[in-house]
Amino acid sequence: MELLQQTIRNIPPVAHQAAAAVKRRFDRLTKPQGSLGELETLVANYAGMTGEQMPSIPRKAMVLMAGDHGVAVHGVSAYPQEVTVQMVYNYLSGGAGANVLARHAGADMFIVDVGVRVDLKEHPRIINRKIAYGTEDFTRGPAMTREQAVKGLEVGIEIANMCIDQGYGLFALAEMGIGNTTATAAIASVFTGLSPEQAVGRGSGIGDGRLKIKQQVVQQALLVNKPNRGDALDVLSKIGGYDIAGLAGVILGGAARRVPTVIDGVIATGAALIAAGLAPEARNYMIGSHLSAEPAHGKMLEVLGLRAVLDMGMRLGEGTGACLAMTLLDAGIKLLRDMATFEEAGIATAEPR
Amino acid sequence: MELLQQTIRNIPPVAHQAAAAVKRRFDRLTKPQGSLGELETLVANYAGMTGEQMPSIPRKAMVLMAGDHGVAVHGVSAYPQEVTVQMVYNYLSGGAGANVLARHAGADMFIVDVGVRVDLKEHPRIINRKIAYGTEDFTRGPAMTREQAVKGLEVGIEIANMCIDQGYGLFALAEMGIGNTTATAAIASVFTGLSPEQAVGRGSGIGDGRLKIKQQVVQQALLVNKPNRGDALDVLSKIGGYDIAGLAGVILGGAARRVPTVIDGVIATGAALIAAGLAPEARNYMIGSHLSAEPAHGKMLEVLGLRAVLDMGMRLGEGTGACLAMTLLDAGIKLLRDMATFEEAGIATAEPR
Repeated sequence: MELLQQTIRNIPPVAHQAAAAVKRRFDRLTKPQGSLGELETLVANYAGMTGEQMPSIPRKAMVLMAGDHGVAVHGVSAYPQEVTVQMVYNYLSGGAGANVLARHAGADMFIVDVGVRVDLKEHPRIINRKIAYGTEDFTRGPAMTREQAVKGLEVGIEIANMCIDQGYGLFALAEMGIGNTTATAAIASVFTGLSPEQAVGRGSGIGDGRLKIKQQVVQQALLVNKPNRGDALDVLSKIGGYDIAGLAGVILGGAARRVPTVIDGVIATGAALIAAGLAPEARNYMIGSHLSAEPAHGKMLEVLGLRAVLDMGMRLGEGTGACLAMTLLDAGIKLLRDMATFEEAGIATAEPR
Repeated sequence: MELLQQTIRNIPPVAHQAAAAVKRRFDRLTKPQGSLGELETLVANYAGMTGEQMPSIPRKAMVLMAGDHGVAVHGVSAYPQEVTVQMVYNYLSGGAGANVLARHAGADMFIVDVGVRVDLKEHPRIINRKIAYGTEDFTRGPAMTREQAVKGLEVGIEIANMCIDQGYGLFALAEMGIGNTTATAAIASVFTGLSPEQAVGRGSGIGDGRLKIKQQVVQQALLVNKPNRGDALDVLSKIGGYDIAGLAGVILGGAARRVPTVIDGVIATGAALIAAGLAPEARNYMIGSHLSAEPAHGKMLEVLGLRAVLDMGMRLGEGTGACLAMTLLDAGIKLLRDMATFEEAGIATAEPR
């Protein structure tokens, strides 16, 4: 609890001067003012986060939190629960979507076991921070204790600190846990006011039968646990997951040290809602990426005030949308640094009237 | 005329089998089916264009057509006409937005003078195919003759063929010509049915005074020239430009040899409307990129049946949006090629119900 509280206290205000310096430079570059649209905003906001007046391309870490969800016993996913473990091994061998897009974006992947339901084989690339063998079935009571939720958050903070100590300057959130879109739908319902019917989506691609079960399960979870929207730790412990806790911790750990986090799809956005609930100022260190095909996502981003620049109907999670957005941020930083100014290029400036 | 007609005749039908093979492989990869959304569609469509069942990352050419517009005398741009030339030299020294994003996307830039109003200095990287010293003022009569329009298209076809012979497999369209959003608004008005008031935007960032002039100029151009929507060559010659003609030619030249073109903002999309008007089957070899902040763009893409995956409020042109989209296509191709299948990874498949 001490680490969590200290981390939250340490989150600094945004460096408005750095953001303003970036905007001024963009206005001097050889293009109509504002014509790079959201790319300019993205880089200016990023500069406000890191405090650099002339940002350079950051070293990137994709933090993948793996944890199982007790609610999976109800058959809310198209995949059996074993797939959490099987996918962790797929990440190790480099064959998942997360791996391919992390390589594409130049990000290194950190795989963390925060709560997988079985013991994973020991491997130098699996960071074992298992808190429990999956969450409890939250249709019957809380998913975890408040202490376990804090532990999950502190695992994320610890991983963030470790990465920052190694020189990483930008996080992408990724996750694996069969059942985690169900937990996320419950969290989304609490923070956005959407009904369970509106918040629940087809996740891994379920049919109408499972969709009905998933909606009922979320409804039941809210009824049984009565999560308190004003207490994000209450929400996280009652209807969250270890993966979500860990990711929320990464956001907080990054924010405390001016390292931004690129939010991915619904699950990462659920973690972002938890982080923002615990520390509203953490919101200033989040970068939106894509709009997921999951129905609650638009509303979740809206509550956080985040903008999705990509709208590609993706719904894989695993940090895939975040990786694509990181390449757009890189493009924006290169434009800021490498374009000529009007003076340098000897070009006549605009005469708007 | 012979080269143009032959090129149009040579455009082959799309290879549906290759597209279907790509879709089948995406369904076998370790992810919920369809969960990569538009990335899957993008790669499947691309495969249909090139005919490759397992596409590889293409070598990329950004073709930048530069030409002046007689209509610029009316003050429709925020910049003086000299800026066309000044920007060409900026491309040569690598300092423009087009250069930075071409490098980001791994594309080589080809700079073509199709109709700049002064003689450019000789330089090995400027391809001189000047047809005239800018178009005529189309508020008083046609921008060019029908023969000049054909020449412009054939310049584009020739450049496309030259690039394809050198091993390039994907085109991005880029352009420079003060006044070209005015010509494009006129073209958009003809093909989309938008009124000049609806089609005209602030282009380079003009104020209300110039906006009014720009709207009047487009209205006048349509009144004086009466371009025939059913005859794209008539539209191009009367209210187009040499830059637009050249880019339409690149699309046609690429299509005839199964090389796709990534369409950029409004001007490239204006060229795409001309190309599709001349050869409806050329449409099958176009890839949408971003939605420009220019008001007519959404409707122009809709008429072409193209989808913009990026919505970033960009309005620079110069192929910048196309470059970003090329990186998304690369990401999709890498996913197709490098992700493991369920069999390879030993992962349980979905049981949707």
